[in-house]
Amino acid sequence: MQFCMVPFNLLENKAAYLNTGTWASKALKEAKLFGETVEVASSKSANFNFIPKDYSIPTDADYFHITTNNTIFGTEIRKDLDSPVPLVADMSSDIFSRPLDISKYGLIYGGAQKNLAPAGVTFAIVKEDLLGKVSRAIPTMLDYRTHIKEGSMFNTPPVVPVYAALQTLKWLKNLGGLQVMEKMNIEKADLLYNEIDRNRLFKGTAATEDRSIMNICFVMNDEYAGLEDAFGKFAAERGMVGIKGHRSVGGFRASTYNALPKESVQALVDCMKEFEAKN
Amino acid sequence: MQFCMVPFNLLENKAAYLNTGTWASKALKEAKLFGETVEVASSKSANFNFIPKDYSIPTDADYFHITTNNTIFGTEIRKDLDSPVPLVADMSSDIFSRPLDISKYGLIYGGAQKNLAPAGVTFAIVKEDLLGKVSRAIPTMLDYRTHIKEGSMFNTPPVVPVYAALQTLKWLKNLGGLQVMEKMNIEKADLLYNEIDRNRLFKGTAATEDRSIMNICFVMNDEYAGLEDAFGKFAAERGMVGIKGHRSVGGFRASTYNALPKESVQALVDCMKEFEAKN
Repeated sequence: MQFCMVPFNLLENKAAYLNTGTWASKALKEAKLFGETVEVASSKSANFNFIPKDYSIPTDADYFHITTNNTIFGTEIRKDLDSPVPLVADMSSDIFSRPLDISKYGLIYGGAQKNLAPAGVTFAIVKEDLLGKVSRAIPTMLDYRTHIKEGSMFNTPPVVPVYAALQTLKWLKNLGGLQVMEKMNIEKADLLYNEIDRNRLFKGTAATEDRSIMNICFVMNDEYAGLEDAFGKFAAERGMVGIKGHRSVGGFRASTYNALPKESVQALVDCMKEFEAKN
Repeated sequence: MQFCMVPFNLLENKAAYLNTGTWASKALKEAKLFGETVEVASSKSANFNFIPKDYSIPTDADYFHITTNNTIFGTEIRKDLDSPVPLVADMSSDIFSRPLDISKYGLIYGGAQKNLAPAGVTFAIVKEDLLGKVSRAIPTMLDYRTHIKEGSMFNTPPVVPVYAALQTLKWLKNLGGLQVMEKMNIEKADLLYNEIDRNRLFKGTAATEDRSIMNICFVMNDEYAGLEDAFGKFAAERGMVGIKGHRSVGGFRASTYNALPKESVQALVDCMKEFEAKN
């Protein structure tokens, strides 16, 4: 929904988008319904296996939109970018995975269902002074100002996921906060990426410097391509399911969101080692 | 959200709205952002205490919008209206309270949180041939065709309320379906309305012929107006809370949604009798 709320609320002159994957493309597609858009860069021709870095953001854009983590392709923008215009970030799949410099963002939004709560609630963190500058009429429910004014109670709030979000935030705080969470996430990701790089059967799909710590994508090395189904079955027999990669990348994808314990990553690494020994 | 989805998807020429309360007014307000609207009738000047019946629907309207149950004012449209143009009904607060002739409606929509599931999911029943006739661009998420095409899986579905909805529908079916549910609802409502009419302390606020079987509004009779707070306290001491009427009507409101057992209504009736005996 916020794909269209962003341009509804912010797009007056033009909007700049960085195209780093499926969700970034969808966000851009919605913005086009509302006005002029500029795709500042895209990694589509490389099947989105890296985050473009060499681009310029039009200084007359109303905002610059990024998708910080690309679940399908396993790439992530893990630093807070500098932008000459308000920075808008879809952080659906990596919010609360690391500390961030909130002052660098104009609007952060996302669905809660990765690191925050079950599906059914979304979040938005918005600088109020960005709002109220567009000339179009905004339906009340889609106007960020409505939800600010009503304290997120304009609609009947979905209490179950909201309560789960509260418990998740308490858990994060008790753990030691986002510094600790990020350290744990990096440890988990390093454990798996190190095995991918070491194991002669596998290789990662994302550019090393852009690897996501939330979604880890890997495929069989070319000479072992025929073993893909066998590894999927081997892992499933050991209780590891749901690691099939998206059809547009193939291979495997291990999602290592905040809630996943390191032991689960270790189990997959052990499974990869065992499979290597047998092949 | 569907307040704006309805005109987004259906309003090309003009839209007709029947104004029967707070939510009907909000629906009309959103439609005005999209094009010409006609308020065919309103009971606002009577504080929405009845459902207007003497009106004509413009035959060149794209649709005629009604709100079948008005939670704040305790009125309800309990028959399926005939309309010369597609009939659109917000049934948020009385869906599944009675059987209905689905063929008379072009679009039925609502939030699930009264008779269907916890807050966090909504429903829509739409005749496909009404869609795709407007010239405006519709954001993907707000286009009913998206959700039809994707089998309601375009967004990550909120599985907890969806599962609760399934269980509720199974419960309804096991009860004997909507015929049985309506009979139970009428029994509950009659029990309370009969006591309101009999008890010298109280009176109903809605026109008798338009009384809702979901939300039953009543106030103190004029000569006992001073007893309102005392009755609220008396009921609370007996475990009956949340029956304070909305500030725009005052008095009391007992909501008798599908899930409420008859025993709870009987308890309130007993409480009213007891309070009468003491005053």
